[in-house]
Amino acid sequence: MIDSEKHSLMAAAARVLAIDAVEAAGCGHPGLPMGAADVASVLFSHVLAFDPTAPRWPDRDRFVLSAGHGSALLYGLLHLVGYEDFPLDTLKTFRQLGSPAAGHPEFGHGAGIEATTGPLGQGVAMAVGMALAERMMNARFGNDLVDHRTYVLASDGDLMEGVAQEAIALAGHLRLSRLTLLWDDNGVSIDGPASLAVSGDMLARFESAGWSACRIDGHDPEAIFAALERARTSDRPSLIACRTTIGFGAPTKSGSAAAHGAPLGPKEALGARHAYGWASETPFDIPAEIRDLWRIAGLRSVHARKEWEKRYRALSAEERGEFDRRMRGQLPPGFDEALGGFRKRLAADRTAIATRKASEAVLEVINAFVPETVGGSADLTGSNNTLTRNMTAISPGHFGGRYVHWGVREHAMAAAMNGMVLHGGVIPYSGTFLAFSDYCKPALRLAALMRLRVVHVMTHDSIGLGEDGPTHQPVEQLAGLRAIPNMLVLRPADAVETAECWQIALENRTGPSVLALSRQALPALRTVHEPANLSARGAYELRPAAGEALVSLFATGSEVAVAVAAKELLDAEGIPARVVSVPSFELFERQSAERRREVVGDAPVKVGIEAAVRLGWDRLIGDDGLFVGMTGFGASAPAGVLYRHFGITAAAVADAARKRLDERVG
Amino acid sequence: MIDSEKHSLMAAAARVLAIDAVEAAGCGHPGLPMGAADVASVLFSHVLAFDPTAPRWPDRDRFVLSAGHGSALLYGLLHLVGYEDFPLDTLKTFRQLGSPAAGHPEFGHGAGIEATTGPLGQGVAMAVGMALAERMMNARFGNDLVDHRTYVLASDGDLMEGVAQEAIALAGHLRLSRLTLLWDDNGVSIDGPASLAVSGDMLARFESAGWSACRIDGHDPEAIFAALERARTSDRPSLIACRTTIGFGAPTKSGSAAAHGAPLGPKEALGARHAYGWASETPFDIPAEIRDLWRIAGLRSVHARKEWEKRYRALSAEERGEFDRRMRGQLPPGFDEALGGFRKRLAADRTAIATRKASEAVLEVINAFVPETVGGSADLTGSNNTLTRNMTAISPGHFGGRYVHWGVREHAMAAAMNGMVLHGGVIPYSGTFLAFSDYCKPALRLAALMRLRVVHVMTHDSIGLGEDGPTHQPVEQLAGLRAIPNMLVLRPADAVETAECWQIALENRTGPSVLALSRQALPALRTVHEPANLSARGAYELRPAAGEALVSLFATGSEVAVAVAAKELLDAEGIPARVVSVPSFELFERQSAERRREVVGDAPVKVGIEAAVRLGWDRLIGDDGLFVGMTGFGASAPAGVLYRHFGITAAAVADAARKRLDERVG
Repeated sequence: MIDSEKHSLMAAAARVLAIDAVEAAGCGHPGLPMGAADVASVLFSHVLAFDPTAPRWPDRDRFVLSAGHGSALLYGLLHLVGYEDFPLDTLKTFRQLGSPAAGHPEFGHGAGIEATTGPLGQGVAMAVGMALAERMMNARFGNDLVDHRTYVLASDGDLMEGVAQEAIALAGHLRLSRLTLLWDDNGVSIDGPASLAVSGDMLARFESAGWSACRIDGHDPEAIFAALERARTSDRPSLIACRTTIGFGAPTKSGSAAAHGAPLGPKEALGARHAYGWASETPFDIPAEIRDLWRIAGLRSVHARKEWEKRYRALSAEERGEFDRRMRGQLPPGFDEALGGFRKRLAADRTAIATRKASEAVLEVINAFVPETVGGSADLTGSNNTLTRNMTAISPGHFGGRYVHWGVREHAMAAAMNGMVLHGGVIPYSGTFLAFSDYCKPALRLAALMRLRVVHVMTHDSIGLGEDGPTHQPVEQLAGLRAIPNMLVLRPADAVETAECWQIALENRTGPSVLALSRQALPALRTVHEPANLSARGAYELRPAAGEALVSLFATGSEVAVAVAAKELLDAEGIPARVVSVPSFELFERQSAERRREVVGDAPVKVGIEAAVRLGWDRLIGDDGLFVGMTGFGASAPAGVLYRHFGITAAAVADAARKRLDERVG
Repeated sequence: MIDSEKHSLMAAAARVLAIDAVEAAGCGHPGLPMGAADVASVLFSHVLAFDPTAPRWPDRDRFVLSAGHGSALLYGLLHLVGYEDFPLDTLKTFRQLGSPAAGHPEFGHGAGIEATTGPLGQGVAMAVGMALAERMMNARFGNDLVDHRTYVLASDGDLMEGVAQEAIALAGHLRLSRLTLLWDDNGVSIDGPASLAVSGDMLARFESAGWSACRIDGHDPEAIFAALERARTSDRPSLIACRTTIGFGAPTKSGSAAAHGAPLGPKEALGARHAYGWASETPFDIPAEIRDLWRIAGLRSVHARKEWEKRYRALSAEERGEFDRRMRGQLPPGFDEALGGFRKRLAADRTAIATRKASEAVLEVINAFVPETVGGSADLTGSNNTLTRNMTAISPGHFGGRYVHWGVREHAMAAAMNGMVLHGGVIPYSGTFLAFSDYCKPALRLAALMRLRVVHVMTHDSIGLGEDGPTHQPVEQLAGLRAIPNMLVLRPADAVETAECWQIALENRTGPSVLALSRQALPALRTVHEPANLSARGAYELRPAAGEALVSLFATGSEVAVAVAAKELLDAEGIPARVVSVPSFELFERQSAERRREVVGDAPVKVGIEAAVRLGWDRLIGDDGLFVGMTGFGASAPAGVLYRHFGITAAAVADAARKRLDERVG
C-alpha cells in the first residue's frame, strides 16, 4: 500500500523542515520530529482525513501532538500538506514572537493545531475528550454528519504522567474505539535512557485498561500503515507502540538524549541530510517533486469532505441549524429569557438553600433548555449535585447519554473536557470539591490559555464543609484560581446569584469558569428580582448603609450572609454599614475605574470577609483593610463550630469593624 | 496460623468501634472500616511490627491508610492495640474540634498516624516514598538498624488517581519489594458501582508495572495472612486485591454506596452488631476478653523492638549519634558556618549566573556537608541543576545512591518526598519547572499541612525561559504557591540570595519550601558579604535612595536587577529611588509591624516588579501602587524579546514611576 521510496522522501522533507526550523531558531527540539517523522508522515499522507482547503471541516479526523515539544514536526507537516496558516515563511519564524509556529503548538495560532500541548500528558487526555465528544455528537447527529477518528502522538514522558494514566483508564473503560494512540517509543527521556525511570510493560499496561496494543518498527512505513488500519477495525482504543530512534539520521546524536532539546548544529544537521539522501543543503529547500507528493497527499480527503457537504446540505434546515449552532458554540436562542424567568422565581422563593443545591435547580433549567451540556463528576455526583432529572449517563460503548461518571480522576476529567470543547458541539461541566481543583490545575490552566468554555462546579468550597477536615477544606484555592489569567472564579452568595453565575459561565465563550459552591444552606439574600445580572458586575452593593457609610463590608459566597448579619449588628449600634457582594474579582476588575470607585466607596473602615486566605483581598480593601477569614488550614468539626472557632461570625466582624472605626475616627 | 474465631471477635471490635464513632459524630464513613476490618485486623494483629509503648520506634513497620475517609478504622485499631493517644474517650470525640480522631487521619494528631490522608492517591505515593526512604536508610545504616516494611490500604478511588498510577509505576520500577498495597476491592464508589467508571484488570495493571499481584477473599483471615506472608518474600512490591463487602454486616446497606459516607442509623448499626454476633448494644463497649486479645496482639513486637534497642545501643557513639541526628531531622553541626563561608565567597565572586546554576553551586556545598539530602528531578536534571558531582542515582533494587530519577511524574515525586520525610532520616529535594508545580499541587499542600521539610527546586520561573512559550512560562504559580498556608516561596535575585534561600529552606523544619529559580543569567547584586541572612527577613533594602526616596521599587528574583537598573535611570534624572528585594512574601509577613513599615517606607510612589500576575502584590505596594509584571499568559520568543514585549524593563519601570510621581507630586 505504501510506496516506500516516496515515503522516504516525504518523511525526509518533514525531518529536514524540522531540523532547519530548530537551527534557524537556535533552540528547539529536533529529536522527536526526526524520530517520529515516519509515523506522522504515514498518518498524514495515508490515514488522517482532513482537508487543508477547509481546515475546520467538522468531520475531519483530529490529530493531537501530545508531545508538544515536537512542534516543528507538526508545523512542517501542516506546511507540506498545504495549510495556509503555515507557509514556509512561518516555519522560518519558528519560536519567534508572534509566529504561529510557537515553541509548543498553541491552539488558535493556526488551523491544523487542534490543541495546545507541551505540558506532558495533557494531549493524551484531550484526545480522549475529543474521541468522547465525537461519539456523543455521533449519537445525536448520526454517521452522516459525525464519523471521524482521533489520533494522538505521545512520548515516553506523556505516558509517565498521571493525567495520561487516568485518561488511558477512562478511554479503555468507555471503549473509545475511534481513538488511536501512537507512542513514540524511542526509549530516551531528558535525563537519559527512559530505563532510568521506567521499566514496566507498556503494552500490558494498556491491555489491562481495555485497549488493543501492538508494537511495530516505527521506521517501517508498511508496518505503520498496517497497524493504523488494524486500529480502525478494533472495537477498543488502540495503542501502537512505535519503536523509533530519537534524532533519526543524526550521525552522532541519534538515539541519545543529546538529540532531544537543542539544535543539532550544522555538522549533525548536514550529516542527517546525507543520511536521508537529501540533495539540497539549503535550509527549507524542498524539491518540487516531493512538494507535489505531499500536496497530493494533502488533498486525499477533499472528495470525502465534499461528500460530507452534500449530506450536510441534504439535512433539514432545522437539523443543519442545530448542528451549526452547536459547532459554533452558540447557546439556543431565548436562553437569557429562560434563565431570567427562573431567576425571578428564585428571588420570590426565598428558601435557604446550599448554593450547590441551587446550582442543581439552575441546571434543571439549563439542561432542559441547552441540549449540548454534558454533565459529570469525579465520583461526587450526589455531593456536587451535577446530575439533573432527565440526564442519563453514557456507558462503555454507549454514548447517547449526557452525563459522565469520570471516576476519581479530576485531572483527566478537566483535560478531557478541554478536548471535548476543542472538538466542538458540546458544553461540558464538571463536578468535584473545590479543594480538589488542585488535582486538575494544569488542565484548568490550559483551558484558560486556549480560551475554552468549560464550567467547573466545585462544591464544598470552605470550612463550611465541616467534619471532613483540612484536607477537604479549601482555604487557598480561590486565590490560586483567581491568579490564573482568563479564569472566571464565581462564588455566588445565594440561589439568585447562583443562577446569575451559571448564566455568566455559559455565556463566557472565551474561557473557563469555576463555580465555587457551598455545602451548607445559605439564606436567600436577593429577594427582589433584578432584570440585570448583578453578578456580572463582579461586585455590587447588596445592602446600602442607612446614611453615610462608616463601614463597608465586602464578602463572597457563604460569607455574604455573615456580612449582612454584621451590618445589622452595626446598624443597631448606630454605625452605618453597607454590604458589597463580590461574586467575582475578575469581573469586578473589568469594570470602569469609576464604577470600581463607586462600589468600593470611601467608608473609613473596609472589611473583607471570606473563609479563605487574604491573598488578593488587599486589592479591594487596601493593605490596611480589615480581613476576616482564614490564616491557615481548617480543622475537623461541624461547620458552625468551625466558623466560630476561626472567628468568621457576624459578631466578630462587627467587633473588629467597631474597634477599627474607633481607632480611625477616635 | 490464624484462629478464625478470635479473629472474628477482634475484627468485630474494630467494626463496632467505627460504627459507634460515626454514629456518635452523626457523620463519617462506616463503609470502609466495616469492609476492610478483616484485612486491617489481620495486619495489625499478626503482621505489622510496631510497639504502642514506643510508638516512634524507628524500625517499626509503617502503615498508611490511603483511603483516609476510613479513619474510624485506624483510630479503632490504634485504640485496641494500646496507643495512648487514642483512648476510648478520643474515639467518642470523632470528628469534633480538637480531637486527635479527626475526620481524616491527620499526621501529628497522635502517634500511630503515619501520614495525613484523605485526598485520594496521596497515601499510595507517600507509602512509596516511605518504602524508598527505608531502603535508602538501610543502605546507609544496615539491616541491624533499618529493616522494616511499608503497608498501604487503598480504595478503588485511590487507584483511579493519576498520582497513585505514577507511584505504582515508580515502585515497580525501583523494585520496592518491602511495599505491600492492600486494595480494598469492594467494587463500590460514591457514584455507585465502581463499574460506572472502571473496567480494567487491576492485577494485570500492577503486574505490567513490575508488581506481584494476587486476589483474595478479604473476609478470609487465613487468605489475608497467607497473602501478607507471600508478599514478604516477593522480590517486587506486592498488590493484594482484597475482595470485600463495603459496610460488611449492615443488613440493607452492605454492598452499596449507601454504606460509604453517612452514619448507618441505629437500626442498621444494630443489625450489623447482630450480624457480628456482638452481644453488647452499648456504644463503644468492648468485652474485656476481646480487649485482651487485642492488647496481647498489640504487644507482639515489643521483644523485637527491645532486640533492636540492643543493637542500637551496641553501635559506636558516632554511628548512633548520626542515626539519631538524621532521624530527628537536625542538620549537621556547623552547617550555618559552612554555608556562611560559601556565601562570603559568592559575594566576592560577582559572576553573572542563573539562579538555577547558583543553586547547583550551593548544592555542591550542601550535599558535601549534609549526607542526608536526597536529590531528584522529574526528568529535567540538566535544566534544574539538581545533580551534584558526588551524587549517584539509585536504581532498581540498589539504594546506595542519593539521587532519584523520578521520571516525568511531578505529582508522585512530591508525594513520595512527603513520605520520605514522614519516614525520617532523609531530606529530599526535587526538581521541575515552576510551571509544573501545578502538577504536584495536592502533594505540596499536604506537605504544608503536615509541616514537612521538603524542598522543591523549581526553575525556569518566568517568561525568562523564553521560546518554550506560555505553556512553560509560569505567571500565576508564584501567587498560587504563596496562597498555601505554611508554604515558603523563595525567589532569590542572585547567587548570594540563592545561598541564603537554600539555608532558609533547609533550616525550615516545619514546612515545605519552593525555590523559584531563573533559567537566565542574572547579575550579582549582593557583592558585599553580610554575615546575617538578609533573605530571612523576607524583604530588605538592597539599594538605598540618594536622599529622601520619592520612589520605592520592590522586586523579586530576576526582576530585582530590573529594579536596580530602573533606580539608576531615576537617579540620573534626580529622582531618588530605593530598591527593596523581596525574596519571600511569607517571611516578610512574619516580621514585626515596625520592621515592615520601615522596609515598605513612605515614598510617594511604590512600584512592584515581578514577571508574574499582580495578585498578592497590593499587600506590599497598596491597591494604588504601580505594578510592572504580567497581566496574562506569556508567549514564545527569546527571553529578552519577551521582557521588552511585556514591558518589564528598567526603562518601562522608570517611565511609569516618573509619570506616577508627576501625577502625585504635580
